[in-house]
Amino acid sequence: MTAEVCLSPILVDQFDMRGKNVVIIDIFRATSCMVTGLCNEVDRIYPVASVEECLRLGGEGMIMAGERGGQKIEEFDIGNSPFDYLSEQVRSRRVAVTTTNGTQAINKSEDAYQIIIGAFLNLAATVNYLVRQDLDVILHCAGWKGTINLEDTLFAGAVLDSLGDRVQLKDDACQLARSLYRDHQDNLLGIAKQSGHAARLAKFGITRDIEFCMTQNTYDEVVVMRENYLSKL
Amino acid sequence: MTAEVCLSPILVDQFDMRGKNVVIIDIFRATSCMVTGLCNEVDRIYPVASVEECLRLGGEGMIMAGERGGQKIEEFDIGNSPFDYLSEQVRSRRVAVTTTNGTQAINKSEDAYQIIIGAFLNLAATVNYLVRQDLDVILHCAGWKGTINLEDTLFAGAVLDSLGDRVQLKDDACQLARSLYRDHQDNLLGIAKQSGHAARLAKFGITRDIEFCMTQNTYDEVVVMRENYLSKL
Repeated sequence: MTAEVCLSPILVDQFDMRGKNVVIIDIFRATSCMVTGLCNEVDRIYPVASVEECLRLGGEGMIMAGERGGQKIEEFDIGNSPFDYLSEQVRSRRVAVTTTNGTQAINKSEDAYQIIIGAFLNLAATVNYLVRQDLDVILHCAGWKGTINLEDTLFAGAVLDSLGDRVQLKDDACQLARSLYRDHQDNLLGIAKQSGHAARLAKFGITRDIEFCMTQNTYDEVVVMRENYLSKL
Repeated sequence: MTAEVCLSPILVDQFDMRGKNVVIIDIFRATSCMVTGLCNEVDRIYPVASVEECLRLGGEGMIMAGERGGQKIEEFDIGNSPFDYLSEQVRSRRVAVTTTNGTQAINKSEDAYQIIIGAFLNLAATVNYLVRQDLDVILHCAGWKGTINLEDTLFAGAVLDSLGDRVQLKDDACQLARSLYRDHQDNLLGIAKQSGHAARLAKFGITRDIEFCMTQNTYDEVVVMRENYLSKL
């Protein structure tokens, strides 16, 4: 089993995803929200590229969720906070979601054998699933508008560290991510709070989202893409 | 003084280089060669994008240097080994050079206030110069055909670590680079040998180049771009 790390969707053309598991990583906050929702009785999540597509699915009865630039879209039912996905409002419902970075990374991974949604919230379950599948894996960091970010790279490093000797690191970005994780594993929240993305979110007063998203193994389920929606395995 | 790290020329559009010092980093081997040559009586080095342009300058009496895919170009006088730049052949001469990654990174940095050529071979001199200038700095890693590589990121991290409190880290890639350096500073050669690029070079039997390029502070000079050529400060 080999691993590669794509540190930004801008670099995605350098990767051949065919036959591989691709883990989508957008810790602040898209993939953390997806995991939270589906592990709390949201039925399905449909990631879509545009606000318009979300509104269309809203017209068909779905919950409309998402953000642009970190803030809730006005006409939408919920924003991009994991706490939105813990509310009564979304239980047993289908959610259509669009976000700045996370849904873009999903769309750019369509060649994958399977798309898996990664978050610290279900890190161990995701790693165990990767081990059971024993397929080559690409850790695809969503970043922030093309730039590389700390929290997604940290998560990629955490996965590689957990995989240990069971994985062969195929590119230099793997070493980079794993070093970052090892350098900060005793204070993940501290380093994550230093990320530019966390600073942007803090401006909107959502520091509790950051703390929630950096919590490990709250959930023991794996979230995957099926055709055009996400659900628990 | 702020710092940013551009981990690959593919990401360069995210950076505004105007008014900033931009350090070009292609440790294996373009920038190590440039520093070696200019600190050993090469007169000037002209970095050019194409083999054709190199041949044209060769016709005007310059030494033709460079590689494609890690190997010397057949018609050229020298390849891309720092030892080529220590030979009698190049002393007091002008050299036209084209390489896979390094010259591309230089060409993509033309908006900079000043382009500086970085290598472990003159790390301390380069850092001291950045401190004296006290301008915002972008550390521009040349990578390998667009992918991120260990040795260039390590050098960016080494610069940031040396700058210490004198610099404000402006993006998450800075933290990534500095963590990588701190994680491996006691064994830089060991980690550099694990890079994909070092493995490719080792296939050509040039392990001694790798060791040479990872040596720190052999030279005490700074190399900069002036109009269309490189020379010592």
